[in-house]
Order: sequence, then C-alpha cells, then structure tokens
Amino acid sequence: MTTGSPRRRSWWGWGWADAALSDEECRSYGALIPGAAAEPRVPPSIADLKLPRPRVEPPDAFASISTVDPEVRAGHTYGKAYRDVVRALDGDVDAAPDFVVYPGIEGDVVALLDWASDANVAVIPYGAGSSVVGGTEYDGSDHAGVVSMDLSHMSRVLDVDRVSRAARLSAGILGPALEDALRPEGLTLRHFPQSFEFSTLGGWLATRSGGHYATNRTHIDDFVESMRVVTPTGTIESWRLPGSGAGPSPDRMFLGSEGTLGVITEAWMRLQDRPVHKRSTSATFEDAHHAFGAVRAVLQAGCTPANCRLLDPGEAGLSGASRAGEWVLVLGEESAHHPVDDALDVLTEIVRDAGGTVASAPTESDTAPATRDRAADSWRSSFIRMPYVRDAMARMSVISETFETATTWDRVEALYDDVRTGIGAAITEITGAPGLVNCRLTHSYVDGTAPYFTVIAASRPGSEVAMWDAIKAAAMEILTSHGATVTHHHAVGRVHRPGYDRQRPERFAAALGAIKAELDPAGICNPGVLI
Amino acid sequence: MTTGSPRRRSWWGWGWADAALSDEECRSYGALIPGAAAEPRVPPSIADLKLPRPRVEPPDAFASISTVDPEVRAGHTYGKAYRDVVRALDGDVDAAPDFVVYPGIEGDVVALLDWASDANVAVIPYGAGSSVVGGTEYDGSDHAGVVSMDLSHMSRVLDVDRVSRAARLSAGILGPALEDALRPEGLTLRHFPQSFEFSTLGGWLATRSGGHYATNRTHIDDFVESMRVVTPTGTIESWRLPGSGAGPSPDRMFLGSEGTLGVITEAWMRLQDRPVHKRSTSATFEDAHHAFGAVRAVLQAGCTPANCRLLDPGEAGLSGASRAGEWVLVLGEESAHHPVDDALDVLTEIVRDAGGTVASAPTESDTAPATRDRAADSWRSSFIRMPYVRDAMARMSVISETFETATTWDRVEALYDDVRTGIGAAITEITGAPGLVNCRLTHSYVDGTAPYFTVIAASRPGSEVAMWDAIKAAAMEILTSHGATVTHHHAVGRVHRPGYDRQRPERFAAALGAIKAELDPAGICNPGVLI
Repeated sequence: MTTGSPRRRSWWGWGWADAALSDEECRSYGALIPGAAAEPRVPPSIADLKLPRPRVEPPDAFASISTVDPEVRAGHTYGKAYRDVVRALDGDVDAAPDFVVYPGIEGDVVALLDWASDANVAVIPYGAGSSVVGGTEYDGSDHAGVVSMDLSHMSRVLDVDRVSRAARLSAGILGPALEDALRPEGLTLRHFPQSFEFSTLGGWLATRSGGHYATNRTHIDDFVESMRVVTPTGTIESWRLPGSGAGPSPDRMFLGSEGTLGVITEAWMRLQDRPVHKRSTSATFEDAHHAFGAVRAVLQAGCTPANCRLLDPGEAGLSGASRAGEWVLVLGEESAHHPVDDALDVLTEIVRDAGGTVASAPTESDTAPATRDRAADSWRSSFIRMPYVRDAMARMSVISETFETATTWDRVEALYDDVRTGIGAAITEITGAPGLVNCRLTHSYVDGTAPYFTVIAASRPGSEVAMWDAIKAAAMEILTSHGATVTHHHAVGRVHRPGYDRQRPERFAAALGAIKAELDPAGICNPGVLI
Repeated sequence: MTTGSPRRRSWWGWGWADAALSDEECRSYGALIPGAAAEPRVPPSIADLKLPRPRVEPPDAFASISTVDPEVRAGHTYGKAYRDVVRALDGDVDAAPDFVVYPGIEGDVVALLDWASDANVAVIPYGAGSSVVGGTEYDGSDHAGVVSMDLSHMSRVLDVDRVSRAARLSAGILGPALEDALRPEGLTLRHFPQSFEFSTLGGWLATRSGGHYATNRTHIDDFVESMRVVTPTGTIESWRLPGSGAGPSPDRMFLGSEGTLGVITEAWMRLQDRPVHKRSTSATFEDAHHAFGAVRAVLQAGCTPANCRLLDPGEAGLSGASRAGEWVLVLGEESAHHPVDDALDVLTEIVRDAGGTVASAPTESDTAPATRDRAADSWRSSFIRMPYVRDAMARMSVISETFETATTWDRVEALYDDVRTGIGAAITEITGAPGLVNCRLTHSYVDGTAPYFTVIAASRPGSEVAMWDAIKAAAMEILTSHGATVTHHHAVGRVHRPGYDRQRPERFAAALGAIKAELDPAGICNPGVLI
C-alpha cells in the first residue's frame, strides 16, 4: 500500500483489490476440491468490459458529484454474493447503473430523489456494496434509467452524547471509520457483521443487520435511538428516545425497508463502553441433540454470552476447531465493567450438565492487553480473509456460498437434518458430484436459533450461477416448508423474493405496498426489492 | 365473595366492585388533603343512568353473543383514567356503546368486522377496559353506531411449546388466568403491568405495554414470537421466529396500533422459567444529580436488575420508603437459574461509587419459599390497592392521577426540574392551591429513563375533569418541548393525540394513514385513535 494513493476496492470481488488471492493461492485452494478447475479464471480488464450505453446522464445540478467512470459503474453493478462475483468474472455488467452519484449533504439526496421521481429514474441506495442478496442490482427494465446513490461521502460522526452514551452518525460511514472515531471516547457501537470493513451504518439499518455477538442484543435494530430518512415525499426524523409506547415504532418501519421507502441519512445510535474483561472456553458434544440442547440451556438460563457459536462436525473440521467428528461449542463472555469469571463458570456448569465435555481451562484470560489483542487479531484476520478465499474458489469454478435462517428450538433438529440431507442430494443431482454442507449456529435466542449453512461444491465452468441458483432454490424450499425465516440477517433483496413472498402475510404485503405508494409514489426507490 | 356467583367488576371505577373503599376510608384519605370534599360522592345507580338510545341493534347473527344490558353498556363506556372515573361518578355515560359483543371464536371477529364495515359501525376492541388514555371511548359522531368488542370470551392457552419455551395464547386472556395456566409448567410470561389483574394480552400488545421489571426486556414487544390479527380486509399471521431480517417486522406494525388496524386475536409469546433466586437492597441519595447518575451507572455497566426504581423525596415520603427528604433507589435481582448474590454485589458497588448510601444488608434473601411469597404478596397487595385509593380520592374531589414519559440521560435532570416547577405552578394556578408532584423512575435503559409523575391536588366538585385536563395539557406541553415521549407505556388513545401528533413525523403519520386505508378501508376500527 503506497502512502498517498488511496487503497483501491476490487470492482469484481470482495474488499481491497490488493488483498485478492494470488493465482498460486487459487490453485492451492482449488486442489482441495475434486472437480475444481485446473487454472484460475482471469478477471476481465475494465477496458474489455462491454458496459451498456447510459440511458440517462447526470443532470447539471449533480454533475460535480456524479461519475460515469467505467470501473465505478462496473463496481456498482452487483453486490458481493457468489453469483455476483462469478458474473463479474464473466464480464457480464449489463445491469450497470447509468451513473453513480455521491451526495455530500442531505440536500443532495432530497434533490436527487426529486429529480428521479420526475424523470422516472430508479435510485438504488448504495452503502458499500456488500449485499449478498441482490439488494443493489437492478436492470432498469421498468424505468427510464438507473442511478446508484453511493452514500460513502456522507460518513461523519456528527455528535456524541457521552452522558446518554449515544452518537449521531451519517449513514454512509463504514464500520472501521465509525469505530475509529468512537475509540478515543472509550466507546463502541460493537456491531461487527462479517462485512464490517465494507458495509455502512445505513446498510446495516436498511437490512436489519446481525452483529458478531451470538446472543442478547446483536441486531442493529436494538441499538437505534432515532433515525432520519429522506423519502421522495419528505423527510422523517424520529425523536431520540430510550423507549416509547406511542403508537407503532416509526424506526421499525424503516429498519429492514432495504431502500424501498427512501434513503436513511442519519441515525442516533446507542453505544457501549469498550469491553476490557474477556474469557472464553469451548466444549465438545457427540451428537446434534446434546449440542443443540446445550445452547438452548445456556440461553434459557438467562445467560448472554458474547460468543456462543456451535459448529457441526463438518464446520469444526473445516475451521480447524476439531477433526474428531464431534460438535464444538465456543463460548465467550465480555464486560466493560466487571470481571466475567463468574459468568464463565455458570456457562461451564450449564454446558457440562447438558452433556458437553468442557475444555479443562479457559483459553483466554484477562491478562495483558497485548495478549488479548493478539488473540482477537488472529480471529479477526481469518474471519476477514474468508470472503477473499470465496473469490479464489469462484476463480477455480468452485461453488462456495452460504445461506442462513432462524427457527424455534422445537424445530431446529429436524430442520438441520432436512437441510443437510436435502441440499446434499441437490448438490449431487445438480453438479453431478457430492459437496460439503456444513452448519454453525451464529446467533441464539431463548426461543430458537439461527443456523448458518456453508456449501462447497465443484461446478462446471460457465454453469456456476445456474447451479448455485438451483441449490439455493432447493434451500429456500426446505427452509420455508419448515416455517423457518428466509433470512436471519442477510436481508431479502431480489434473491430472496420468492421465499419472502411466501413468508410475509398477504395483507402485510398490501400494507407495505400502501406505505410505498404514499412515500414513494413514483416508485423509484430500489424497485423490485421487498415490494 | 359468595361461592357460585362470579365476582362483579365495578362499572364506574377500578377493578372489583366489592374492593372499592368504604365511605369511611374515603373520608380518611380525604382528610389528608386540604381542600378535599367533606363527604364522598355516591356513585350513581345503574337505574338512574341516562344511557343514550342505541342507534344500532345487534344483528341476528350476533344476538346470542351480544348484550344491551345497561350496566354492561355503562361499564364499557370509558377506560379507567381519573377523568373516566369522575365522569362515571357524574353519571355521564353519553358515549356508551350501542351494544357490547363477546366473540367466542375468531370467526365471530371476522364476521363482525365484515358487518360493521358494511354498516359503517365503529368497532372498539376492548380487552379488560383499563385504558387510561381514552383508548376505548368513542362518541360515534362519524359513524352510524358504536360497538364495543369485548374479547374476554377468547381467553385460552391454546398451545405450549416447552422446548422453545413459548405459548400460543388467545388475546382476551387476563393476566392472572394466563399466569395460572402457565404455573403448572413452571413457566411465566413475567409481564406484570400495574393493570395486570384487569388487562389482557391483546391489550398489552395493542398498547405496547411496559411490564413491572425496571430494566432489560420489559416491554411486551420483546416477548412476541408471532401474532395473529384480524383486519377488516383479511387475517394476518406472522411466522413463529426467534429472529428474522426479512423486511420490516410485521409484528412491529401491529404492536402499538391500538385497535386501529384490526383486532389482535392470538399471539405466540416467549416465556420464562419462574424465578427462584431473589435478592434486593436499597440506597439513598442526597440530590437528584447523584441519584440519576447512580441509575445511569447501573444500566451503563450492563447490569439488568429486575428492580431499579428510583423515588424522589416526595414519592419516597408518600410511599413510606423514607421521610428524610432523600432520594431512594430500590434494587433487586432475580434469576430462575443461579443465585444472584454476585449480581447484587456488583449493583451495590456501582451505587456506592456513584455516591449512594447502601442499606447495610440485603432486605430479602433466598430463604424459604414461604418467606419469599409473603414479601411478594405484601408488595403486590399495596401495588394492587393503589387504583382503588385513586377512586376514593375521586369520590372526595381530589385529583389523583399520573403521567409518564421517557427521555435520554442528558436531558432527564432538566426535564425533572421543569416538570416539577411547571406542573407545581399549573396546579396552583388552575386549582387555586398547591398540590403534590412526585416522581419515580419506573424503567431505565442504557441511554435514558422513564420518569413517572404523580399529581395529587384538591379540586372543586364539578370541575375535576376540566382542572385535570388543564394540568395534563401543561404536562404534555412541557414533555414535548423537551423532546420527551408523550407516553412510555400508557399508549396514545384519544387523550394523548395532541402530543402524539407533534411527536410523530408527518410523513410517518401519512404512512400509518395509508396502512389504515389499506387494511380498514371503511375506517371502522377504533376511530380517532392514533390516525
């Protein structure tokens, strides 16, 4: 990374362009998967891309904050799902926006929505483009044009209320910038989705993002004190309130609205002190029944561990946690205020009672900060590296993708079995060879849990997207037939629409449509998503 | 209470008719307030009431589940606010519904809404009638008639899922019946608003009720797994999910909708194990600054005490907690799973650090269940008696009423001062003599708290409602000028409309109106509330 020149984002894959895996690394990963391609596919050069001719041009008023640069248009075509990366590698950028606009102030957003409403131009709010559900991709077929509204220039910490421990933040702020700004105050939003580096507060709010922490308040929803949303017919700002019983919550109407009702420009968010006490341990289980039972027992005892991640034998093997064919539960407690040894003892006792074999001693302790940071850094770097590995797999024609859900405890064992069996069979049928279907529980609740599935399977060059789409359709069918949600924290976008249309009650869909017609009468806000 | 004959509800006042205070008790309470009437007003007899002639009659299809009984009509005219009780004592029942219908099954609700939509008859969903904000009172001026739909015959526990610890409940079930049914399973909803005995699950959901517990998840909102709502245009049932990121939450659209969008008929609710470990203590403070600071420190340290109730000197004096002119903080921890001594120690340390004088020893402990139950019963009986005392005050022409709000920590001290000063002055100006304005914090959050104010002031017979309304208008003005919510857990109803109309953003109001037009196109569901 050269000082002075900003680090470049990859237009076709995850994250930083210079962090993409080398050809050599791609080959190493490919060698692990029977049936993978022998050589990594080469990403097309920007000059070779056939971008569609823009149907609309930036009006003069927005010329200074707009661009038609080919790399920027290409980079704003998709999110970062597996199917997005493959299509970009294919050089398919037919759905590129006509131009990309970077509002610098809220007035720009207002003016742009006004202009777009008049001109029948679709506006796609864009945070940092890490949607994995087609949330930012629109082919423009029902509109005169498509503009990607990139909020990244609205990225300030506008106010910090140290007493109430809350901050007013611009929606376009990225995770790291947000945390950097709060660190000197000893504060943190403590919201770390896997996309943390390449996602924004506004994106988290619009998609009801789930954070890294496994229990308790981890969805972004619970940290919202108030929100400011520019709709095509006016701006809405809720009051800063710690709690209220005054009618349905206005914030909850916009949380999860995925850009369909307007553009979130600011929010007051509840913050936390930075944790200084951390302890963790792990336990193993012989079977699913005892493993799920242990997590359930932890939650139903009223415990709220920061980490409570259950890995099935396949996932434990893949991540290196255990190659003994057993289930692994990783447990951690954190506090900014008091030592968490007692809390970890309670967890240990519960997990033992539930049939777990607990590691003899906590694997991390409140020792020197340097030790803690190294352990955290090690975890963080492997977590952060994962999407780059996924891109390497894509270059080797290997399907490497995930889907996630949530269901109540009474149904989770049957769901797990059916997904493993059903998707296993689907992979064999669709790709002609078996693949891996692993599972971990990412978030748990007193009444249920969120299983997160990983699929790895060799594909045929040129058929990756069709094959994955067929596997995904099978997954959606199994999940919805069990009454499990079509998405726990990845949002709906365009990819989950078929499942979402089954999940949401018809009259609720009609109500959402009525809100949309009221706030966005021209129908320009992220068309095709949700409504 | 005679065996065999069901205990009668009071048609004019709170709760059970036979629990109303005697004339002698009324005089004793009146004697405490300079300027109170010398003799208690006598509630009018049903025979003397001038009920309006019904404008609509129950259609034949509903004849067997409807009544025009005068006492029932009179009893369904109002909620149970101070101004409701005074008007009932005045014999003013002009707003009585034309008839009261008791659906026994959901099909009755559907059929009734169909009929009412066709006949332009307003339908007022009625749980147990304990609204203190005019939520169930409608004069019918824009409709051909008014029907009170009393859900009390739909009151079953329909299903219990012991594994996920959740239950499917009919909306008309009263608090005690619900807890009685769950007790044999060792489970509890653990939602105890002060109206617990005379309010229903459906009422709690429709009004976003706040429970008895002071911190953490205490609003009914957080315990909803799924809901079933009959709207005039169809029935909505959300899926049972522990968490989901699929679009805006359907449940959150109906939580707080106060009967304006339809009738909640069922919900799957998250339950808890019954707490067996309980410890409590108290602390005193010399001034508001340290007292508020201590509560804030407890919450911001991540503690979640079951009780964390701060009483100002006036409230502490009135409740007998302390007559030394000091602030009193009552703290309690509970757990169904593990002892809470450690948790209480943490609280004690935080409160001491914040300048509190902590009682030398916990006042309650995990000893024999009998002891615990006696202590709980003692608290419960005084809490339950309070509204009956309020009715006695009403009979003595003494204003005895409350209002509540929530605000962030940075603003609470100024708000407290302004309310005490402003409402103190308003009482003197309006009634001609000073009154009491006391405050307690009922619920607290990491970013703020919910102050609950009690007003006691002698009034003039015949002017009680006008005087209270003037005091209440002054309160609403002060709260909204501080950006504090117009209601934390009492709902909006018709009484809070002026403040609510200021609090809710205009475009959000338009969105609510659009939902209403979609789901209730004839506009028959609880007209005048919210929208």
